Amino acid sequence: MSLKKLTDTMLPAIESELQRQVARLDEPHTLPFHEMLTYHMGWTGNGAGSDATGKRIRPLLVLLTTAACETGWLHAVSAAAAVELVHNFSLVHDDIQDNSEKRRGRKTVWTIWGMPMGINVGDALFVMSNQAIMDLIEHYPAETVVKAATVLHNTCLDLTRGQFLDMSYETRNDLGVENYWPMIAGKTAALLSACCHIGAILGGVDESKQDAYRSFGHAVGLAFQVQDDILGIWGDESITGKSAASDLLEGKKSLPVLHGLSKGGKFAERWAKGPIQSDEVEDLAQVLASEGSYEYTHGMSRQMTTLALDSLREADPQGEAGEALMELANKLINREQ
Amino acid sequence: MSLKKLTDTMLPAIESELQRQVARLDEPHTLPFHEMLTYHMGWTGNGAGSDATGKRIRPLLVLLTTAACETGWLHAVSAAAAVELVHNFSLVHDDIQDNSEKRRGRKTVWTIWGMPMGINVGDALFVMSNQAIMDLIEHYPAETVVKAATVLHNTCLDLTRGQFLDMSYETRNDLGVENYWPMIAGKTAALLSACCHIGAILGGVDESKQDAYRSFGHAVGLAFQVQDDILGIWGDESITGKSAASDLLEGKKSLPVLHGLSKGGKFAERWAKGPIQSDEVEDLAQVLASEGSYEYTHGMSRQMTTLALDSLREADPQGEAGEALMELANKLINREQ
Repeated sequence: MSLKKLTDTMLPAIESELQRQVARLDEPHTLPFHEMLTYHMGWTGNGAGSDATGKRIRPLLVLLTTAACETGWLHAVSAAAAVELVHNFSLVHDDIQDNSEKRRGRKTVWTIWGMPMGINVGDALFVMSNQAIMDLIEHYPAETVVKAATVLHNTCLDLTRGQFLDMSYETRNDLGVENYWPMIAGKTAALLSACCHIGAILGGVDESKQDAYRSFGHAVGLAFQVQDDILGIWGDESITGKSAASDLLEGKKSLPVLHGLSKGGKFAERWAKGPIQSDEVEDLAQVLASEGSYEYTHGMSRQMTTLALDSLREADPQGEAGEALMELANKLINREQ
Repeated sequence: MSLKKLTDTMLPAIESELQRQVARLDEPHTLPFHEMLTYHMGWTGNGAGSDATGKRIRPLLVLLTTAACETGWLHAVSAAAAVELVHNFSLVHDDIQDNSEKRRGRKTVWTIWGMPMGINVGDALFVMSNQAIMDLIEHYPAETVVKAATVLHNTCLDLTRGQFLDMSYETRNDLGVENYWPMIAGKTAALLSACCHIGAILGGVDESKQDAYRSFGHAVGLAFQVQDDILGIWGDESITGKSAASDLLEGKKSLPVLHGLSKGGKFAERWAKGPIQSDEVEDLAQVLASEGSYEYTHGMSRQMTTLALDSLREADPQGEAGEALMELANKLINREQ
């Protein structure tokens, strides 16, 4: 209940701040460029609307954390925009790198305007994230701005690390579960961790509390990704909306797959023979489960969830925002889709 | 003489700071990623060495400006690294966008490691520029760091604007000389302007002096680009090392070309008929000159040069660094290659 109530007031503020940041390109010379960004953000073009914008989880995490530190969240809204712009910059470049033609049911930027423009759109969103975090100077001391920006920049390097690992894993056959964590630490956990860390910095709590919020975000990110990996192989198609075994078809080296490969059993044997076909995914998912990979992955998900909840308890979030933060964490971790 | 003397002490400091920044990826998990960056920076791989690193003009401009404000330049070295990292990020992405296979005589990053990795290398260099500018906090008050970073970020958005215009001009046939300036303001002048502006901020001079340094850098950038356009059509091949009329062959919408097109004479007539062939470039360059485009472009170059020197006089740079700054400006503007 707290989450819905707070979300209803925070989301419009986030959206309007994002629009204000992106409007830096809303000038006569660069109107078509501006349009590429507003399209990607889900505001304009075919299929624009709330399905196209995404859920804005990351900026919500920033604002809920700031509020849970018993400070006003309104001044933190440019930091919230900054993390969402980082997320979207990485999506635009990801789509090019993965050759993905669709995102949230719509054509990707590069598909419409070409790869060179797509790279430039990602770059512009990245620049705007830097500008947005600097805008904190309107409301916070310069020392605080430098701290928040440093966290954001370090996180962005983690994103490139995760992206590098993800791309390099595609062609590697010597991987075990130990290779999984550094990749998703960069690709998924780093930015969620930064959201809570930055929120806590702006909330003015001491360093030990900042650390606790940071660990909370990190663990939520890991738990979220592990859960995503489970759904990608054993999810209920009618709920997730995508083929349950699509990760197997795509050859994605998710945690269950890496676990299965390390077992060297029937799953590993089949995997080594080349791409999985759609008529065998259902059976293969069962083989993988029978070799203990479902059990193992679920156990990891539980561990990360415990870690997240322990960290949140240590952070000791206050009031309605604290409750909302707990609700959001549960939603992210225990989701079925 | 002052330039050579100062350059000899500044360049090693710049190079070692750049290596320190890039070493953030020098970790077991990301060694091949680190190697992609050190290759691009000119330190490792085939053809590594001073020909491969480029001249480091931009970081030199930062340090010379700081020193010309009568403050020590050593503490400004991370800002110098930041502008060079921005420059290199844009080169890596440019090479992908332009489909360029060679840079400074070596294979480009994407040619060796593929387009997806190439995008990620550019992104990482960009992140490191942000981290480098934040490192100023070790030596400057947080307010100064925020000011310098804000200038850098605004400049990066200008770069994406210039890149957008450049790419969109490729397919446009309605362009005149008035379309030239906003493009090169973003692509070339913005970063040179930022170098001098940031140098002046770190040099602690008042805002009117900061403005003068900023204008100086901007005008040097414009003059440099206009000069580059002249050399690209009427340059002496034996000096520039590239075919003098290569800009005509490539169909580049440089200032002389835009001027020629606006005249609607023989040059414009030929241009409208499709790509220029190598056996006609020499004649066509003469046609363009006879229609007044050489005269016009040279006049613009002189105007920008005057603007640059007036601004520098207003900035009133001091001592040996002041002399060196004047020398560097003359070198950039009056070069033959």
